[in-house]
Amino acid sequence: GEILKRKQPATLRLLQQRRDHRPIIHSIKVAIALVLVSLLYLQKDLYDEVGDNAMWAIMTVVVLYEFTAGATLGKGLNRGIGTILGGSVGMLTGLLSQRAGRRANAVVLGISIFFIGAIASYTRFIPTIKKKYDYGVMIFILTFNLIAVSGYRGEEIVKLAGDRLSTVGMGFAVCVATSFFICPVWAGDNLHRSLVTKFENITVSLEGCLAEYFKTNNQKTAVKTKRSISNGYISVLHSKDADAAMANFASWEPWHGRFGFYYPWDKYLQISETLRQLAACVLSLHSCVQSVQQSPEWIRRSFEKPCTNLGEAIVCALSELGESIHKMRRCHSLASVIGKSLQAMAEELRTALIEPLPHSQDIGLVVERRKKGEEEEVMGGAGLGDALAVAAFAYMLLEMEE
Amino acid sequence: GEILKRKQPATLRLLQQRRDHRPIIHSIKVAIALVLVSLLYLQKDLYDEVGDNAMWAIMTVVVLYEFTAGATLGKGLNRGIGTILGGSVGMLTGLLSQRAGRRANAVVLGISIFFIGAIASYTRFIPTIKKKYDYGVMIFILTFNLIAVSGYRGEEIVKLAGDRLSTVGMGFAVCVATSFFICPVWAGDNLHRSLVTKFENITVSLEGCLAEYFKTNNQKTAVKTKRSISNGYISVLHSKDADAAMANFASWEPWHGRFGFYYPWDKYLQISETLRQLAACVLSLHSCVQSVQQSPEWIRRSFEKPCTNLGEAIVCALSELGESIHKMRRCHSLASVIGKSLQAMAEELRTALIEPLPHSQDIGLVVERRKKGEEEEVMGGAGLGDALAVAAFAYMLLEMEE
Repeated sequence: GEILKRKQPATLRLLQQRRDHRPIIHSIKVAIALVLVSLLYLQKDLYDEVGDNAMWAIMTVVVLYEFTAGATLGKGLNRGIGTILGGSVGMLTGLLSQRAGRRANAVVLGISIFFIGAIASYTRFIPTIKKKYDYGVMIFILTFNLIAVSGYRGEEIVKLAGDRLSTVGMGFAVCVATSFFICPVWAGDNLHRSLVTKFENITVSLEGCLAEYFKTNNQKTAVKTKRSISNGYISVLHSKDADAAMANFASWEPWHGRFGFYYPWDKYLQISETLRQLAACVLSLHSCVQSVQQSPEWIRRSFEKPCTNLGEAIVCALSELGESIHKMRRCHSLASVIGKSLQAMAEELRTALIEPLPHSQDIGLVVERRKKGEEEEVMGGAGLGDALAVAAFAYMLLEMEE
Repeated sequence: GEILKRKQPATLRLLQQRRDHRPIIHSIKVAIALVLVSLLYLQKDLYDEVGDNAMWAIMTVVVLYEFTAGATLGKGLNRGIGTILGGSVGMLTGLLSQRAGRRANAVVLGISIFFIGAIASYTRFIPTIKKKYDYGVMIFILTFNLIAVSGYRGEEIVKLAGDRLSTVGMGFAVCVATSFFICPVWAGDNLHRSLVTKFENITVSLEGCLAEYFKTNNQKTAVKTKRSISNGYISVLHSKDADAAMANFASWEPWHGRFGFYYPWDKYLQISETLRQLAACVLSLHSCVQSVQQSPEWIRRSFEKPCTNLGEAIVCALSELGESIHKMRRCHSLASVIGKSLQAMAEELRTALIEPLPHSQDIGLVVERRKKGEEEEVMGGAGLGDALAVAAFAYMLLEMEE
């Protein structure tokens, strides 16, 4: 337990330091990609090849470049598929409408733009499409519309669509090359790290709550400490959307580092969900600790030991789990051992609470004392259940790892 | 209280029914905008005017069209400002580099693209810019790059930039017209409604918890009811990001309906934050209700009345506040009256809990009984504090309204 506690702040600090440099590296990568793709204009031979279509390549780079490799790849594939499909449907529509004769041509085009536009826009509300293919559908609508109407103005549709596709491909290649091979930022790594950080945040909050509750009366807690307690669980509580987005990006990423293809990213989301429930428990524990009515100190002292024991067991279990996820190590018997020690601690606290205090006759005081203690216990119980659930998840996860 | 309770499910159902039609209407609006902007190609006079630059108008419509009017307007203004700034800087760079002579020209361009691209990409990480102007910076990079390199290929830069800007403007006008004048969907309305729904969700969850806890042993709760309890507070808990996005869009919206310019949308975010804290309380209350250890029925019965009284007072206060926000009515003395009745109820429960039960000698049992009751009280207390905070917020809000 001790070793873990000393190790973690260091990890945390390291992560925060590291985060500071990544925006600068990202900006330089974008700038390199822009210069590379501008060569299509600036270098004579290349310009002779592609001409003004080079514009599409520049546009592709600016629009596709996202912070993580997975997001860039996902957007790029969306753009590619959207361009191909939109181009094909646009060509078909253009060719069919040309057969309708000069007059009817525009009317046929207008009607097909209306219906295909409406249907494609509607599909963007379907949850599965909205989640992964929203951008692709947008590009489909754009390419379809451009190709269909360009044909009406006598341009050679097939050549136009082909040129557009090839320059989009060039832009995409530049994006992928710079994004994957110069200091890549993997969404999967971020998700992995953010999960480990969640364990750390909850641990910090829980330790803070215990320390706050059992501090002696003349100790004052610094505002900074209080803030770090609540920041811990609040950041975990509000992480749902960010996690979902990151898991989505991670699912686009190819094999990298210790993560294989088809890595079970949704397991990460499940663990996060469990941690959010645990964070909610810590939140209510903290609100009890902060409440105005507090039992006198001698009462608190009397059940300090079982409470801190249970608390430390939970903290230790969480650290252990976080560490094992961090290192992606299988924790062979970890789950059952931790589970058992937690259960023993919880039982100890429960016994201590049911035995009446020797020197208290007043029921009101006993109740006062019970109040806090029982809440600790309820929270502990909840924490226990959750820790076990997390252990089960972690176990599943690491089993799939092997 | 009764009238409100009957009214709310109806409101809720109405909102849900209404939501179903909006995607279809939105799709039709997008299709209309696409057809209108395609006329730039299909109508001969218009095409003679703008030529192939009509492409930019189509692109603008596809890319800008968002579900809410505020989001469309915000993106459109971002695109406009980004295009103007990017075009100006691009023109300057292009003209300056042309003075450098034929050989150095490309090098100067490459260097300026690198530095301006890197700096602009970096600004996208600054929180305030990321929040409201991210899209504008992207368009700035795009336009700057396109205009700067086009000049190198001998095209007339000033004309190019002007044409691009005017066609972007046309696309923007079509977007705004269809988005604002055909069944507009206002982000502000959505935010307002989602706040009212939050009050309803918490009320439903809280009522469900009380009913669940004080139900007789042979009553079984349907799985559906259980799910509706937890859905209530969970949807509130996870609403942070969606709310922030909606408030951002709403801040772009001009005067509409009952909302004026500079409507204090951030007050909505503050109220939501308070409601999220309250939802966390309901969550821990629910986990107590669901816990395996339960006190026997006769004990629960003995403090059913003060508990349900307090619960109903909180529910009533929440409904009242939700209703007053819904109708944007000032609740003159509401805050103080509700606050007082809540305080009285809380006091009643507290007294009931401190008096020992007449027919219980066993301290263990008393403790069991206390456990639940005290938790109710703690939650009630927390709820009280939050309700008062909400009342204070609502009061401020409605005062600004006047």
